[in-house]
Amino acid sequence: MTLTDLATRTYNHSFRLDPIVRSLLDTDFYKLLMLQLIHSRHPDVEVTFSLINRTRTVRLADTIDEAGLREQLDHARTLRFTKQELIWLAGNTFYGVERMFGPKFLEWLADFQLPAYDLRVVDGQFELSFTGPWAAVTMWEIPALAIVNELRSRAALHHRGRFALDVLYARAKARLWEKVERLQALPDLVLSDFGTRRRHGFLWQRWCVEALKEGLGPRFIGTSNVRLAMDADLEAIGTNAHELPMVAAALADTDADLARAPYQILSEWQEDYSGNLLIVLSDTYGTAAFLRDAPDWVARWTGFRPDSMPPIEGGEQIIRWWQEKGEDPRTKLLIFSDGMDIDSIEATYHHFHGRVRMSFGWGTNLTNDFRGCDPSGDDAALAPLSLVCKVTRVNGRSAVKLSDNPAKATGDPHEIARYRRVFGTPDQSARPVRV
Amino acid sequence: MTLTDLATRTYNHSFRLDPIVRSLLDTDFYKLLMLQLIHSRHPDVEVTFSLINRTRTVRLADTIDEAGLREQLDHARTLRFTKQELIWLAGNTFYGVERMFGPKFLEWLADFQLPAYDLRVVDGQFELSFTGPWAAVTMWEIPALAIVNELRSRAALHHRGRFALDVLYARAKARLWEKVERLQALPDLVLSDFGTRRRHGFLWQRWCVEALKEGLGPRFIGTSNVRLAMDADLEAIGTNAHELPMVAAALADTDADLARAPYQILSEWQEDYSGNLLIVLSDTYGTAAFLRDAPDWVARWTGFRPDSMPPIEGGEQIIRWWQEKGEDPRTKLLIFSDGMDIDSIEATYHHFHGRVRMSFGWGTNLTNDFRGCDPSGDDAALAPLSLVCKVTRVNGRSAVKLSDNPAKATGDPHEIARYRRVFGTPDQSARPVRV
Repeated sequence: MTLTDLATRTYNHSFRLDPIVRSLLDTDFYKLLMLQLIHSRHPDVEVTFSLINRTRTVRLADTIDEAGLREQLDHARTLRFTKQELIWLAGNTFYGVERMFGPKFLEWLADFQLPAYDLRVVDGQFELSFTGPWAAVTMWEIPALAIVNELRSRAALHHRGRFALDVLYARAKARLWEKVERLQALPDLVLSDFGTRRRHGFLWQRWCVEALKEGLGPRFIGTSNVRLAMDADLEAIGTNAHELPMVAAALADTDADLARAPYQILSEWQEDYSGNLLIVLSDTYGTAAFLRDAPDWVARWTGFRPDSMPPIEGGEQIIRWWQEKGEDPRTKLLIFSDGMDIDSIEATYHHFHGRVRMSFGWGTNLTNDFRGCDPSGDDAALAPLSLVCKVTRVNGRSAVKLSDNPAKATGDPHEIARYRRVFGTPDQSARPVRV
Repeated sequence: MTLTDLATRTYNHSFRLDPIVRSLLDTDFYKLLMLQLIHSRHPDVEVTFSLINRTRTVRLADTIDEAGLREQLDHARTLRFTKQELIWLAGNTFYGVERMFGPKFLEWLADFQLPAYDLRVVDGQFELSFTGPWAAVTMWEIPALAIVNELRSRAALHHRGRFALDVLYARAKARLWEKVERLQALPDLVLSDFGTRRRHGFLWQRWCVEALKEGLGPRFIGTSNVRLAMDADLEAIGTNAHELPMVAAALADTDADLARAPYQILSEWQEDYSGNLLIVLSDTYGTAAFLRDAPDWVARWTGFRPDSMPPIEGGEQIIRWWQEKGEDPRTKLLIFSDGMDIDSIEATYHHFHGRVRMSFGWGTNLTNDFRGCDPSGDDAALAPLSLVCKVTRVNGRSAVKLSDNPAKATGDPHEIARYRRVFGTPDQSARPVRV
């Protein structure tokens, strides 16, 4: 006798929409930390965030149905923080700190809604942008990326048989577990999930996070995904992102203000946060320039997150700088999070082991690695895109990022040239951006 | 919101027994073909079948709870052929033949019940045997093996976490699919599932069968498991087994009768069946002896199933014999089913391709290959046993099998010596029996 759950079956066969984002906490923790700072210190800044598909060869609008994308974006706009989520944000401890989020901020969050979006199709690509107050628009970054990425996965798998799907996920599970077993051999590993934005899908990210929790125990310190951290009783992990110096820089009226802007926003950050949240993201306008001009107090921060240089090269550069500043690197923390995978995690771990504290933020290659998994033999349809959602305009001005890798530079070309001059950042050779 | 199916959840957490064998059709097709012959021609023969664990190093009774084994055996005895199953046996076409099973036989089947069993624990092993009319006892072979094997799998996995189990089955699926992809490269492959007796479990066998159906299309010709053939609309595959010549030999009163017995039972078979069911299993008392003394009509049968010699060596021996008898091997069929796996299937296929028709019966290494799949890293607990259930006594006499591999010989030592003398079968060197 086969028992059929009629309600579930009927639901599965007739639902109107399978929402990709079902919670406003289904975002990265650093967005909430930055949001609190933005809300309290920069409530009047108007910004535009834009979706940028660096993988131009994939014509996203040919793969993903525009109406389906609108439905998902519209659904995300209906979401509000639930009472349970707000209580958790208020009562939970983050990085060992109680009451990380103040009561006024939480009160404001209770009415938060994602703002309107602007969507057009141009030459096979989506032009998706969000314009409005920084404290509203910034929250679109992660859901917008998660929605587009998951719609692409769904499109790739839309007409597959149940069996092909079963084999595909079986292989992906086996593939991830091989990585977990290699990670188990690194006794002092400290690793967290940074894979929300580029994930294959929400449920798959959840599986990956649970796999790391089971496989690595306390060496898996948590996830950047706030909702998964809440549901799986994990630490929410994250600090800050390029948007802080990018907006601060765009707001600068003179070249002198521009040169000071990246440090000015960090000083705001350290007034609001402390301890392990004092992590410098140094590459926005070139790490070499950042270190050269940094005030001494930056060397006393807990650590750095090199984000656009090969990890060993980037780490060595920062260690040398700490030593010049009289700091002991063994007390300092390096967080590696740029396109890491099992090989580069192992190599970086062994290279720096004993010389500096390390933590790995594992993103795309954790939550969206289906290489060799598709029974059709074609990996292209499920290969992750280099898709980002970046601040592009601030109060009418172009927002600029230089990065340590010119392939990741964004902004108006004239402004890029000016920023290069002000920061003294040469135009290095570009490396291909894989993820 | 999470919908909980309360009935399913309550059932899953409180059932008394999870039956391993749930249908009398959950057996190999050759048992039914043989059963019809036994029922019509040898209704009065009394036999004993005994479970034999050739893997003596595994103390089964230390792993499997005796009370649990009794519960499963008792449950199998409560089963009857259902009306749906009997209608299917009557109305289905087997090997292109309608009404393979006669109405009198089906009428008798309607009341069929597995007979009593005798179970003791001796030195860490189960002494499990079945004594009674051949036409009842013979039907214990497959369910007894399936029950013991699945109880062992369950014991191995009993205290594993949900996650370890998920990874284990994901790896096993990925592993099987790698094999399927290699088989897809063999355009003229003819393959069927022979894995019921040694399966990891019923649900896993079903997955494997569905995988082959999906992955190989018409090159997967069917399954020996009658219930799976019925449920998945596949051909039921099988012909006859060693028990026919073994019982016929044991019934022989003189040495001359003994020498004739293996051919006598084949002549009965060809009176009852035809076409692709005319497959010779030649190794019971040594293939060389069998071929040397075989009447000419045996060469006109459709094919052979070499079962205890390396496949290429065994196939070449039979091809030479066909050629001596003036038969064209290209019109003949060789069925390879002894411990085959992907490597030996590929090698055998390429060796004989174009020279003879071939079919592969893939058993243990299809439905019970978990090598490298257990996250604990220990493969031993899930490694398949060389477990058989053989006729051991016939009307009070010892039943004997010599085989082409002396490691597979069974029977009273004095009788084995007499059989060797009568059939002129030398005591070859034994090869290890892996599965």
